Amino acid sequence: MKKNAIYAQSGGVTSVINASAYGVLSSLLKSREVETVYAAKNGIDGILKEEIFDISLESRSEIEKIPFTPGGIFGSCRTKINDVKEIEKIFRNLKAHNIGYFFYNGGNDSMETAYKLSKYSEDSGEKINIIGVPKTVDNDLCFTDHCPGFGSAAKFTSVSLMEAARDLKSMASSSTKIFILESMGRHAGWLSASSALCRINEEQIPLIILFPEVRFEKEKFLAKVENLIENEGFCAIVVSEGVRDLKGEYLSAKKTKDSFGNVQLGKVSIYIEDLISSEMKLKCHTSIPDYLQRSSRHLASYIDWKEAVDVGAMAVSSALKNGISGKMISIERILSDPYLAKYVLVDLKKIGGETKYFPEDYLSEDKMDVNDKFYEYASPLISGEAPNMYIKGIPLYSRLMLNMVQKKNGF
Amino acid sequence: MKKNAIYAQSGGVTSVINASAYGVLSSLLKSREVETVYAAKNGIDGILKEEIFDISLESRSEIEKIPFTPGGIFGSCRTKINDVKEIEKIFRNLKAHNIGYFFYNGGNDSMETAYKLSKYSEDSGEKINIIGVPKTVDNDLCFTDHCPGFGSAAKFTSVSLMEAARDLKSMASSSTKIFILESMGRHAGWLSASSALCRINEEQIPLIILFPEVRFEKEKFLAKVENLIENEGFCAIVVSEGVRDLKGEYLSAKKTKDSFGNVQLGKVSIYIEDLISSEMKLKCHTSIPDYLQRSSRHLASYIDWKEAVDVGAMAVSSALKNGISGKMISIERILSDPYLAKYVLVDLKKIGGETKYFPEDYLSEDKMDVNDKFYEYASPLISGEAPNMYIKGIPLYSRLMLNMVQKKNGF
Repeated sequence: MKKNAIYAQSGGVTSVINASAYGVLSSLLKSREVETVYAAKNGIDGILKEEIFDISLESRSEIEKIPFTPGGIFGSCRTKINDVKEIEKIFRNLKAHNIGYFFYNGGNDSMETAYKLSKYSEDSGEKINIIGVPKTVDNDLCFTDHCPGFGSAAKFTSVSLMEAARDLKSMASSSTKIFILESMGRHAGWLSASSALCRINEEQIPLIILFPEVRFEKEKFLAKVENLIENEGFCAIVVSEGVRDLKGEYLSAKKTKDSFGNVQLGKVSIYIEDLISSEMKLKCHTSIPDYLQRSSRHLASYIDWKEAVDVGAMAVSSALKNGISGKMISIERILSDPYLAKYVLVDLKKIGGETKYFPEDYLSEDKMDVNDKFYEYASPLISGEAPNMYIKGIPLYSRLMLNMVQKKNGF
Repeated sequence: MKKNAIYAQSGGVTSVINASAYGVLSSLLKSREVETVYAAKNGIDGILKEEIFDISLESRSEIEKIPFTPGGIFGSCRTKINDVKEIEKIFRNLKAHNIGYFFYNGGNDSMETAYKLSKYSEDSGEKINIIGVPKTVDNDLCFTDHCPGFGSAAKFTSVSLMEAARDLKSMASSSTKIFILESMGRHAGWLSASSALCRINEEQIPLIILFPEVRFEKEKFLAKVENLIENEGFCAIVVSEGVRDLKGEYLSAKKTKDSFGNVQLGKVSIYIEDLISSEMKLKCHTSIPDYLQRSSRHLASYIDWKEAVDVGAMAVSSALKNGISGKMISIERILSDPYLAKYVLVDLKKIGGETKYFPEDYLSEDKMDVNDKFYEYASPLISGEAPNMYIKGIPLYSRLMLNMVQKKNGF
């Protein structure tokens, strides 16, 4: 008897997580090994609550729009699974719906969940193939050259900085001389670094990048600002949300916690703005894109988008054709120029909890900029465009019916 | 003897002000009535300082890229002309370079400057044709149906809100339920209102808009937030930088002044975020696009871009063919659907100092949203795309030589 398959999204979404959803679902829908194709509402929460959408009922035309749609079309969650009771409940619900394949699309925390489930499957003999599909805008996932979601957020960061710098330059003579862009990246400076990518077309931007991996030294920073203003007339500053001072304290004052228990950061850019205003008596303009940085589907990178689809499709073929379980699809670079990569499998066990920091090796000498190694690494990842279709000037997104299947375990 | 012509940019730049530069300059370059084509560095400052670029020396290929380039390619300024001595100096410098035509591209304050110069020209008999070319992202310029620059900033606002709302919706079940977007618009709510335009494709977004024209009522606002969260599960809030409370005080604490003497506003969105956190104990995500909202050339509206080119070209033909002076090119709408407009001339005298507020007539009943009249007005203005050309994933911008002409008055 054929098994059913389920897909779920987890963690902070990216502008191409739905491209991975499409990669998984469109492969499942055309496979002969699978009976019915499901997606869980709000990640693992939907499996716990038996809230499951029947994808087989969706129209082909709306499915084809999924990879052009930002956000997580089935809903995401920040739920961690710690309890064996929860794992048992998940398996009870998966079994009730005859599910033999589970594809979990997420970052670090989600790969840890996927690992726990695959371990339980192995230990208990309750055979379900569990495959991790990577996503994160932060690019801090280990054991992959880079992560789907990063390239598009990097492209947004780079293009936005480039546009804002042209704006700033035109105003600098009689008005604002400093532009501050606050970038996502709690622990790793990949996204902040990507602002520098506009230089690959020889755009000249006096730029300072503040990395979470580099302790903030006030005097050294202010000296560089002063120097750039004096020599170039203006200066752009990109600051990672997670920048810390020499004592290891976050520059942002606010320290609440998000629902994964991670420290939730405040507005580091406003600290920097206040510092410059008070110490240098200079007016700043400050941009905090926040969600815009990770949801800007309209500016997706083609390579990133294509790889997001591919990791989804590879997950399906690994599970269905090769019976793989307990692995994540990872990207291995073969060449940077011309860019060439292949997909490989990595043990889920390895992934969770590890953070891929921005390497010291990619930093400029003063550690407030990047060097050529970073350009070589990151340039291919923002290349190409994957534009939306527009109707009346507005992007066209998928609108699924999202029919929920009848609950079998009755809670 | 043929006269020369000069173009200058002023005030906060827009993502299509260079499209108007292109409209003016390309028309001048092919006209037979004009000898040499100049552009002033940093608006009227460049004329005061005799810092003038010779555009006739630029390559055609770089000129063709100008309309795809954000910022103000010749530099802008926020200088007001108050002194007759300054006006005399401006005329001395214009005469020294045999300039017979002056095209000033700007908003309210800049049209006031253009008016003063045209008045002086008339009164003194020193004949120079002076034409205003409108631009502003705020859309608060009177005597024009709308203003070049607004449509593209509106499109950015709308698409960004739509993308962020899809992101928010996917996280809302177990994480953030509220997204706040801070919009430019010091006095007028046009840009904040434009966030609602994503609804023209039937995208459903639980949305609250806070207008600078509508006094902020805390209880009414919090009640609407609560209601939307309860019924829709999430809620997007777009807040204009200039929102004031019932006493008329700005919600943002910070009140410095920009170089035009206008009150410079702080972060109203952070006030709203703090209010919701403290009163409703709900976590928010807050985005402050700032310069990104007005410089996002990559997401320009085709209609806006085309009209920006056209008002530039119309300014030239009015001055050269019809000998017009002391006027601004304005857009008069003939029809909304299908959209049809024509270009007309308005006395510069009328423009300066007047603000076109968001009409009460376009507000929803609770004054925290827009109504159908606004959709009819604004929908055509964001229609069509005018994409950049990309090389290696990065937009291609114009890089002019900007050769400065020899000073004649020697200061």
